[in-house]
Amino acid sequence: MDTRPIGVFDSGIGGVTVLKEIRKLLPKENIVYYADTARVPYGPRPAGEIQEFSLEAVNFLLKKDIKLLVIACNTVTAVAFDYIVENVDIPVIGVIEPGVRAVRNTKDIKRLGLIATKATVDSNAYQNRLKSQNDDLIINAKACPMLVSIVEEGWADTEISKLIVERYLENMKKDNIDALILACTHFPVLRNQIEECVEDVRIIDPAEETALELEKVLKAYNILNESETDGEVEFYVSDSAEKFKSIAKNLVEIDRVDEVEIGY
Amino acid sequence: MDTRPIGVFDSGIGGVTVLKEIRKLLPKENIVYYADTARVPYGPRPAGEIQEFSLEAVNFLLKKDIKLLVIACNTVTAVAFDYIVENVDIPVIGVIEPGVRAVRNTKDIKRLGLIATKATVDSNAYQNRLKSQNDDLIINAKACPMLVSIVEEGWADTEISKLIVERYLENMKKDNIDALILACTHFPVLRNQIEECVEDVRIIDPAEETALELEKVLKAYNILNESETDGEVEFYVSDSAEKFKSIAKNLVEIDRVDEVEIGY
Repeated sequence: MDTRPIGVFDSGIGGVTVLKEIRKLLPKENIVYYADTARVPYGPRPAGEIQEFSLEAVNFLLKKDIKLLVIACNTVTAVAFDYIVENVDIPVIGVIEPGVRAVRNTKDIKRLGLIATKATVDSNAYQNRLKSQNDDLIINAKACPMLVSIVEEGWADTEISKLIVERYLENMKKDNIDALILACTHFPVLRNQIEECVEDVRIIDPAEETALELEKVLKAYNILNESETDGEVEFYVSDSAEKFKSIAKNLVEIDRVDEVEIGY
Repeated sequence: MDTRPIGVFDSGIGGVTVLKEIRKLLPKENIVYYADTARVPYGPRPAGEIQEFSLEAVNFLLKKDIKLLVIACNTVTAVAFDYIVENVDIPVIGVIEPGVRAVRNTKDIKRLGLIATKATVDSNAYQNRLKSQNDDLIINAKACPMLVSIVEEGWADTEISKLIVERYLENMKKDNIDALILACTHFPVLRNQIEECVEDVRIIDPAEETALELEKVLKAYNILNESETDGEVEFYVSDSAEKFKSIAKNLVEIDRVDEVEIGY
């Protein structure tokens, strides 16, 4: 039994979709969530910069005495997972392995659509892992940077987000994909509009599988929090607390957000 | 007489709107244009990072033996102008002083709308200079980050850009502004839709005034290019040359774009 918090890190608001699944599955865990909202989006940034920023965030979370780190961001997992693992001595969970497992658990996929940031698509992290399991899988990967901006701007579920989703997914629909993986944690916020756009295509969201992975690792390390009472979540951001709260409150229960300055 | 090229720097495609005015006014000048498209947008970045990236870009241009530097980017001018001037020994022109002059040259403005990136708005560079000239001027400044993304994505003049423009300008229209300054070099690309949205409001684009300022400085330093033939423009980008070309060709004549890696 270990009541220390779990650290959850994302470049922005997206990781809250993972946090939501963790809260559902593991309500007793305490959590410290850090979003680098001053420097979001990470997606268009070069790999070296993403690694540097990520380590700054992780060092902040380590000071909060976290027992385990969840990288709730596909971009960071894609380009900085190994780098972070080398630099910390607590267990680290990313979202890509769970995402790949979520695809494997979905039957009869021949043509998979994958939407993500530019960094995630260019890293080939998903494509390589998926292909190594099933060489016949056809993957249509598309960078959708404006879907991140639109969620960060708080404009999900508007006519604007609907049109942007349609524009990005136009060619995938023509390509007759059977399933579409939301390989960016921001995208579940737009799930309704994405589903409406691609109609019969199955949507795969790695967040649920990430929570299951987390439970497994907490058990394996014997560090589950088995308190009687529910855990708490502390939120820290590097830009406006108010803005973060106004968007995040549609996704999770959120009481207080603190602004911190790290790394610059 | 000096046939060496003028260096023009922007984070992305936006500076091309300034380049266009320079070509019109000073066709004999040779120009080297550098766009840091791998790290665009600069707008949401912290000041220290913008300074660092800008100096990398400027050092690249200095190797091309430029005789003068035009910072064709409001964000960079707002947060890195002094820093760049301290670090180079050629004349440097930004877009903000010319932008402020463009406002001064437009008569009877009582309420001015200002749209820009977050970094430019937060720097107060425009607001301070405008207020120091006319303390009665009411300024309604708004950060419009998605207008940069939409131009970089090549989605200007679509239904999507129209809706985003309308959403950002909604409150300014209610505020009855008489003029609107496009304080980001990307925004003239969206000028038609901006004009349609705000109707009778006068639109102020600092690019033309920047070209006039450039002419003045070239004359003052006695470094005009007075060749018989027209000058040439070389384009360099830090990301996809193809993408840059496909968007820029709607704005200026563009033959060849080279990809370079600087700073990372």
